[in-house]
Amino acid sequence: MQTYWSSMAKRATPYVPGEQMNEKYVLKLNTNENPYPPSQAVIRAITEAANTDLRRYPSPDPEQLRELIGKTYDLTKDQVFIGNGSDEVLAFSFMAFFEPGETIRFPEITYSFYPVYAQLFAIPYEPIPMQADLSLDIERFFHSEGGVIFPNPNAPTSMAIRIEEIRKILEQNPTRVVIVDEAYVDFSTKSAVSLINEYSNLLIVQTTSKSRSLAGLRVGYALGNEDLIQALIQIKDSINSYTLDRLAIAGATASFFDSLTTKDNIKKIIQTRTWVSEKMKAYGFQVLPSETNFIFVTHPKVSARQLYAQLKQRQVLVRYFNQPTISQYLRITIGTDKEMEQFFKRLDQVIKSCHRLG
Amino acid sequence: MQTYWSSMAKRATPYVPGEQMNEKYVLKLNTNENPYPPSQAVIRAITEAANTDLRRYPSPDPEQLRELIGKTYDLTKDQVFIGNGSDEVLAFSFMAFFEPGETIRFPEITYSFYPVYAQLFAIPYEPIPMQADLSLDIERFFHSEGGVIFPNPNAPTSMAIRIEEIRKILEQNPTRVVIVDEAYVDFSTKSAVSLINEYSNLLIVQTTSKSRSLAGLRVGYALGNEDLIQALIQIKDSINSYTLDRLAIAGATASFFDSLTTKDNIKKIIQTRTWVSEKMKAYGFQVLPSETNFIFVTHPKVSARQLYAQLKQRQVLVRYFNQPTISQYLRITIGTDKEMEQFFKRLDQVIKSCHRLG
Repeated sequence: MQTYWSSMAKRATPYVPGEQMNEKYVLKLNTNENPYPPSQAVIRAITEAANTDLRRYPSPDPEQLRELIGKTYDLTKDQVFIGNGSDEVLAFSFMAFFEPGETIRFPEITYSFYPVYAQLFAIPYEPIPMQADLSLDIERFFHSEGGVIFPNPNAPTSMAIRIEEIRKILEQNPTRVVIVDEAYVDFSTKSAVSLINEYSNLLIVQTTSKSRSLAGLRVGYALGNEDLIQALIQIKDSINSYTLDRLAIAGATASFFDSLTTKDNIKKIIQTRTWVSEKMKAYGFQVLPSETNFIFVTHPKVSARQLYAQLKQRQVLVRYFNQPTISQYLRITIGTDKEMEQFFKRLDQVIKSCHRLG
Repeated sequence: MQTYWSSMAKRATPYVPGEQMNEKYVLKLNTNENPYPPSQAVIRAITEAANTDLRRYPSPDPEQLRELIGKTYDLTKDQVFIGNGSDEVLAFSFMAFFEPGETIRFPEITYSFYPVYAQLFAIPYEPIPMQADLSLDIERFFHSEGGVIFPNPNAPTSMAIRIEEIRKILEQNPTRVVIVDEAYVDFSTKSAVSLINEYSNLLIVQTTSKSRSLAGLRVGYALGNEDLIQALIQIKDSINSYTLDRLAIAGATASFFDSLTTKDNIKKIIQTRTWVSEKMKAYGFQVLPSETNFIFVTHPKVSARQLYAQLKQRQVLVRYFNQPTISQYLRITIGTDKEMEQFFKRLDQVIKSCHRLG
């Protein structure tokens, strides 16, 4: 009916997340969650914070956590903004740095939330076509009217660009903010954090959902020069004074105090990614060079849509994007070694049945 | 510097919450928190949810909690929207139902976040002057161009209007949404929930922060007809798929399963409010008739600002609003009986010293 909807509500075209909380799947490899649990220290910290103080508001500014995240990246507290998941941080960034009517640029194949934010806030956008190998066409991000946003490594392609390329994009957009969405950067070596003190137009967005195994806690953050961070605070404090609850603050703080568990988990995932990629190639898949906790694959002879459906029938959930350019690809989250062995068992059945069908 | 700020970031004029997490105050009666802890079932549910599943995203739509809240108010799941605190729910409501350029109305003396949202989203507003006794001037809310929002009971005045008056406002704004912010309604008897099935333009916003002792958990919700709720979902899913973390969902669910603790606490607070109000009057204060967990008071002979400062010196924090019309008032949260006895001890000292000064 939309009887009472504002023009904003009417033009909104929501993001559709991967299927969640669905117990019927044996293998859930569709939302890039970490297969390993968070540090025990996180669980302890949350359990301790679950006390009668819940009747009190949290701090509107979780300063200790900002300081701790800052230290992790050799930055000050004032170069750190924390939000309710990196999606909220990205939404606030669109509000704080992009202007309605001024065209921003992002890759054609990328996180599908970007056009959603742009549409909601009436920011025109120009999707930049990928190169033939699905990598970013760097020069086409130069001189953007309204600003630039891209993930590095990119999703769902899993591929990263080098810091020197990010530097070029920053230098060729001196009056505009360049947002580098580093949701998956801990599985890579190409973080642009070292450029923050050099470029005042660089905003980096990271999350505890992937490498830190805290998707269920909703804590994301932005790193950048103080003036950018202040703009995000300005937006946040005009929407919700307390975006992080007491338990999320406690859990995230414990996670940053114990980064060793995270590092171990990352190492294991990268090892698994290596053999999984090789084995996929042995099955005839083309596997893009992944620097994330997922792989992006295509098979010259088997339809991706068919593969997705057949895996689903066998209780394996992967992500299929029904959109041009990548309609022949599947995104597969890297699980534990054991999970990936199960995955290959089922993939094997599917491939054989496809060959029979073909 | 604001070098890279959008026009939205520049025009934002953030809300300033009451002081938080400040251990140096013996008595913190400034942010209307509940003096009693939440149900033990809430603590248990959170402790149980603090497990390895934190690596998984929460449900993007906490359906079970929506259903449970719906049942609590004889509504369906589709008449319930849940957000990260009622502040976020209010922000989304401004985005979903109010139109940039169309003037909305709210009381001159009210929750000071409303003008913040309006400013951020470029929605013009007309503050409606209060009646002489600081109550709402109902008829001046009729025929609003852009819509209406007011708290009931109102804050910081603590006074409520009757359902029949809300009905009039709804009927005289048939093409516009009327938002009734019922943050404090559980301390009153005047909820407009019963009008939801009658008026499709009524949106009610409530919170678990006050009566349910869960300010630290950040769970607020809206109740209204399905078309209004769908607009809020549309906005939320265009900003952040998962606004509630796993722990908040678990804790809030437990709270709605055990409403008895909440009811007990409300009863105690209302009893305390009664004797505190009487005692304040004995001290010569004028006390507005409160239907909330705070009182709004003024003294004919003592400056409110001076009183606020002197109480603060004695480690008692109350809320003072440095704004016209109410600059002679203080807002005092109702604590436990014991806390309020301590409060009166210190107030007594202050009053005596003021008289000496006077």
